[in-house]
Amino acid sequence: MSFQKLDDLGHRLEALGHALAILGADEATHMAPGGGEARAEAMSTLAGMAHRQATAPEIADWIEAAGQEDLNADQKTAVAEFRRHYINLTCLPSDFVERQTRTRMRCEQLWRETRPKGDWAGFLPALEGVVELAREEAARRSDVLGLGPYDALMEQFDPGNRTAEIAPVFENLKAFLVDFVPNALEIQKKKRAKNPLRPLSGNYPVERQRELGLTMMAAVGFDLTRGSLSVSHHPFCGGVPTDVRITTRYRTDEFLSSLMGILHETGHALYEQNLPHEWAHWPLGRARGMAMHESQSLFVEKQIGRNPAFWEWALPVVEQHLGEKWSKDEILAHVHHVERGLIRVDADEVTYPLHVILRFELEQDLIAGRLEARDLPEAWDEKMKAYLGLSTIDTPQDGPMQDVHWPSAAFGYFPSYTLGAMIAAQQWSAIEKDIPDVNEQFARGQFEAVNAWRHEKIWSQASRLSTPDLIEQATGEPLNAAHFTRHLEQRYGA
Amino acid sequence: MSFQKLDDLGHRLEALGHALAILGADEATHMAPGGGEARAEAMSTLAGMAHRQATAPEIADWIEAAGQEDLNADQKTAVAEFRRHYINLTCLPSDFVERQTRTRMRCEQLWRETRPKGDWAGFLPALEGVVELAREEAARRSDVLGLGPYDALMEQFDPGNRTAEIAPVFENLKAFLVDFVPNALEIQKKKRAKNPLRPLSGNYPVERQRELGLTMMAAVGFDLTRGSLSVSHHPFCGGVPTDVRITTRYRTDEFLSSLMGILHETGHALYEQNLPHEWAHWPLGRARGMAMHESQSLFVEKQIGRNPAFWEWALPVVEQHLGEKWSKDEILAHVHHVERGLIRVDADEVTYPLHVILRFELEQDLIAGRLEARDLPEAWDEKMKAYLGLSTIDTPQDGPMQDVHWPSAAFGYFPSYTLGAMIAAQQWSAIEKDIPDVNEQFARGQFEAVNAWRHEKIWSQASRLSTPDLIEQATGEPLNAAHFTRHLEQRYGA
Repeated sequence: MSFQKLDDLGHRLEALGHALAILGADEATHMAPGGGEARAEAMSTLAGMAHRQATAPEIADWIEAAGQEDLNADQKTAVAEFRRHYINLTCLPSDFVERQTRTRMRCEQLWRETRPKGDWAGFLPALEGVVELAREEAARRSDVLGLGPYDALMEQFDPGNRTAEIAPVFENLKAFLVDFVPNALEIQKKKRAKNPLRPLSGNYPVERQRELGLTMMAAVGFDLTRGSLSVSHHPFCGGVPTDVRITTRYRTDEFLSSLMGILHETGHALYEQNLPHEWAHWPLGRARGMAMHESQSLFVEKQIGRNPAFWEWALPVVEQHLGEKWSKDEILAHVHHVERGLIRVDADEVTYPLHVILRFELEQDLIAGRLEARDLPEAWDEKMKAYLGLSTIDTPQDGPMQDVHWPSAAFGYFPSYTLGAMIAAQQWSAIEKDIPDVNEQFARGQFEAVNAWRHEKIWSQASRLSTPDLIEQATGEPLNAAHFTRHLEQRYGA
Repeated sequence: MSFQKLDDLGHRLEALGHALAILGADEATHMAPGGGEARAEAMSTLAGMAHRQATAPEIADWIEAAGQEDLNADQKTAVAEFRRHYINLTCLPSDFVERQTRTRMRCEQLWRETRPKGDWAGFLPALEGVVELAREEAARRSDVLGLGPYDALMEQFDPGNRTAEIAPVFENLKAFLVDFVPNALEIQKKKRAKNPLRPLSGNYPVERQRELGLTMMAAVGFDLTRGSLSVSHHPFCGGVPTDVRITTRYRTDEFLSSLMGILHETGHALYEQNLPHEWAHWPLGRARGMAMHESQSLFVEKQIGRNPAFWEWALPVVEQHLGEKWSKDEILAHVHHVERGLIRVDADEVTYPLHVILRFELEQDLIAGRLEARDLPEAWDEKMKAYLGLSTIDTPQDGPMQDVHWPSAAFGYFPSYTLGAMIAAQQWSAIEKDIPDVNEQFARGQFEAVNAWRHEKIWSQASRLSTPDLIEQATGEPLNAAHFTRHLEQRYGA
């Protein structure tokens, strides 16, 4: 039976994926520094095994034959998702993948060397090579999938996302934010004039912050019997659904960046921990995509963790762990701080989407051939000035060299971040209707109802639906930026 | 070229072995408790992949053809060791392996249930099944290897070890110890009458013990950039040569058991860290076998860590970390404590070999069919009374149920422990000749010369020689129990 062959393949790929996930998390948290070379070799060999097994030619026949077999509804959906994965994995010839991997890895290495010095001229030739191959990749994927070239790239990260639907949404959001950011900053300035920011005490021992983080993780639903919290240089959520590894890093002079980071990664972890166990070895059993994943992390960080009602409950918990008493207004002044900046990863929720929209626009132009890599510094600077009033023309390390995504050839990924923020806000609107006292629940430290809602609508769905269909089924309407702009207006407006 | 195929296979098996080693260490140290089921499934799937790849029929042809190719000396030795591994892996039919695996796993589970209650009757039928299959395994291996049945089992753990050579050595050692143990106890009693044992203070915080352990590990040669120390329920040395994971467990009422355990595992780790890097992906590049591995751990624990000269240097280090001042005699009274006991893993270096010899004798009788599993409690009790003057007839949990080795079908493994102790003593004798001031060096905390000796004679040899040949090449003579008995007489005699 062909379905059985796919099912067996799923178990083998799950085992290799399990090893790669744990080895990856271990590398960032517990590996001895001298273990890197052998680890990289082992992981690339295992990844090669997984890729060869997942792209074997006979799988096409199994998928075809399984379509004719007497399967239940779940199995049918599983076959469809096997097919989607298989096409995405096999639509590029292997000699192209090898060429692209070499080019990408050389460009990443060069990026690490040239970025600290802002050496755009040294970086550019490698980036040009990556862009050229990204155009070829987009064309090849486009041919196989029957999608526009940029859509074919996005399809890897968020199945069903289309430029035609996203571009106008982003256009409206941009128009809103270009006005809203200065307003929000003006309002913040007036508030601060009346109530100056109370500085953090600067004495937050790591062990106490860790205990606070664990308490908050558990409170918002993280299952500590199926996951853990460690330290790494770059925070991440990794591991496997039965053993989710989240990490943070601590500063002893403040506690909010680590705490908010922990809540963010906890959002990713909740999605992973609550995926349907019985589908774990099928592609169908995975989280839907990057935008939906980001919506879950942002939901916990922004809709829960930066919600004033949450702090009714959280302030005594903070006091208990850190020995410091704050009023709600005092802490919210920190939690809702807005500031124009050059660096995406440091941005607050008001300015962040402008960083993403800038990249979304430039990426489309790059892939379409309307923009060349060599013209990026000027194009970036022009948009940066228009959207955030800042210039990067003399500091390319804060401009087109700031992220690893382009050297890594991950074109089509950036939109997921802001789509995630919009989906999170849209979920919040739906939840406010379905659970009218949700804020009162948060103020009491109760997150069960909101988690039950998300479990039913999002987590248990895994990859059953495309990203747009999942949004619509979960929230009752297609992606609508109005929920996000309303959220920003309520939190940061007059 | 066939050698290249073996070389490539070696890289694939190394990658899978790397994953299994790190996943195994991670499971015991950092895995979330709920992650066990998925981890077990992933590891057994990966182990199956590794086994299938390592036993593929075409490998026999590659080995045959590689033998005809123009290879350098290392490559020729590598092919011979590939052949040895391949024969050991393939000499059992896979349906037999499956039957044995099921029987063994059921017996291990049953052992875990019945041992705490001492329920021999409940355990016996499962053990009988394991013994029956162990006899069949021995006969099958014997046919392929042309060795006696018990030798064919030992061959898996220590290539070249033969009962004909070991049995008389053990016989002499037993005769020596049966007299020596009561003498050593009498001497200890007299010493204690004059100088009563100074009790440990019972206040040893874990973090300080850990720092002490790390300091000692580094001092005796552990490379902390290529390994680490964690906590686990059962101490072990795992991981990979570039990232060796050793573990311990701490009691706050005393520090010596953890410290000696750390030194023991450090001995294993030194062997792994110093294997030839360029052979890492060949069977040839692995440590020689269990007896040689145990000799390296026992060397660090007993020849270094329980050596009076070592404590000249170690006492101020202990004082610095634990804030407690000891005289050398006071600490050595603890470090050299001798006591007759029922449990092998709790035994000191004087009584330990008798536990092993007892099992070695019973195992040979079991495999030869001269003894049945049902008669084990009486046979065990008889030897226990004769060798250590203790009875286990009413407590089978302290007798034939005490170790996991038999339920796991690991017959032929026990001798390695005492062979390791003898090899460690024999190495020490050779080192005393080659480095006459070795004790003075230890007293100054200098371990470089002794490590250089072991690097040249043992570690860098990896699996080039059989166990007996490696012993002879390293120490200048075949296995000779006189070094071990002399060691015991010097340390525990009059």
